[in-house]
Amino acid sequence: MTRIACCQIDPVIVDLDGNSDRIAAAVADASAAGADVIVLPELVTSGYMLADDAEARAAALAAGDPRFSKWAAAAGDSWVVLGFCELGDDGLLYNSAAVLDGGSVAAVYRKTHLWDREKLIFTPGNALPPVMQTPHGAIAVMLCYDLEFGELTRRAVVDGADLIVAPVNWPLFPRPEGEHPGEVITAMSTARTNHVAVAACDRAGVERGQRWTEGTAIVSADGWVVAEAGPGERTVMADLDLSLSRDKMLTEYVHLLEDRRLDLY
Amino acid sequence: MTRIACCQIDPVIVDLDGNSDRIAAAVADASAAGADVIVLPELVTSGYMLADDAEARAAALAAGDPRFSKWAAAAGDSWVVLGFCELGDDGLLYNSAAVLDGGSVAAVYRKTHLWDREKLIFTPGNALPPVMQTPHGAIAVMLCYDLEFGELTRRAVVDGADLIVAPVNWPLFPRPEGEHPGEVITAMSTARTNHVAVAACDRAGVERGQRWTEGTAIVSADGWVVAEAGPGERTVMADLDLSLSRDKMLTEYVHLLEDRRLDLY
Repeated sequence: MTRIACCQIDPVIVDLDGNSDRIAAAVADASAAGADVIVLPELVTSGYMLADDAEARAAALAAGDPRFSKWAAAAGDSWVVLGFCELGDDGLLYNSAAVLDGGSVAAVYRKTHLWDREKLIFTPGNALPPVMQTPHGAIAVMLCYDLEFGELTRRAVVDGADLIVAPVNWPLFPRPEGEHPGEVITAMSTARTNHVAVAACDRAGVERGQRWTEGTAIVSADGWVVAEAGPGERTVMADLDLSLSRDKMLTEYVHLLEDRRLDLY
Repeated sequence: MTRIACCQIDPVIVDLDGNSDRIAAAVADASAAGADVIVLPELVTSGYMLADDAEARAAALAAGDPRFSKWAAAAGDSWVVLGFCELGDDGLLYNSAAVLDGGSVAAVYRKTHLWDREKLIFTPGNALPPVMQTPHGAIAVMLCYDLEFGELTRRAVVDGADLIVAPVNWPLFPRPEGEHPGEVITAMSTARTNHVAVAACDRAGVERGQRWTEGTAIVSADGWVVAEAGPGERTVMADLDLSLSRDKMLTEYVHLLEDRRLDLY
């Protein structure tokens, strides 16, 4: 079994040092609770509601920043994914995810589908999400709006992902009473149509007037929510057997990937 | 507004004549209730749990069968989609959908993604679902398991569909209390990630020991269920403005189709 933790914390806009401490504390707590995989929100280092390029630059980190080593150390043996505001070697800003493993940054993914006003600040990434081979299984790393593109999630599964993890910041949209947030419904559909587990870590709080869905959810490969945060700062955990994701046969004659009609689309 | 009706009826296995009367009655009732678009279940002419090729052949119809004219006449000005067990000109059996419009068969779609034991009886279709231009908007026609393939539903939307209609027979799977059926969750996700309306007409009853989900649902382009049948034989209706599906911009800078990264996948 793999213990997955999502730390739905509430970063403070442009408070790099304060957020660094918040991240280290959340990671250390989750690691102490036995988490194998720890997911934090999108842009957790900087906050989300960045006003403009100048403010984003002031809150940006290079992938070589020593803070990553600090968080990796706090993680112990746990594998960590967090979203950060990246200043690239090329001088451009990216909405990125860092993977921390074995005390250092094992991979950086730059968000390929930018949402709304992110387009005014960030440059979209030009590489597919990585599918990382880990002792816990193959884990694909993407960010927020990426999850809404079935082309991308399917591709990750075809490339072998047992689990899709995504730091997210889901702005609150109205929904009917009793319904999951729309983004969770899509995560559930992604899980069941691909037989893959999904863990999306949202943020908590209100930032510059923006309310968040606080919709953190861990979804099993059967497509059902096995853990969700609800309102407020909270770490949720679930134990999943990720090897189950590898069986794409739902019945004797149904195979979710082989049943695709690649001759038609 | 377009009034969409889904007639969740309970056909009787291999009872072609009885089913023909049931279809005509359901269509006439829905038309009298002002339905512009009427959807019936998959394989509603023959029932679903066909034992083998021989039984399926005995219950099959050619697309030129006079029963289609009878149903089209019952429909009046309404546009109808129903699933039928088709005997093709080529002597092969197909799990098909017929579109009835203006008193005759306007199109036949042969299911491209066969589910489970359907593969033992039917030949898969080799053409994409049609997107029909109607006075009510552009309507894509697919069948059951087709809806689980995001490649196909996205393609229908790119090809202009305002509404996806699907005759289905959803075998009952267990689900957690309070959750929509998994297939409805996927229909909701399809709707919200494509901003397209979806109407899936399930069947009622128990057939040769197989229970059905009785999960008929009409979903708005926002991704929320606006009508659902629940257990038993029942026609559900919803009035939707299908022109809303044409606006793919969720915010000033978000366009669900233009935001795809076709350079990456």
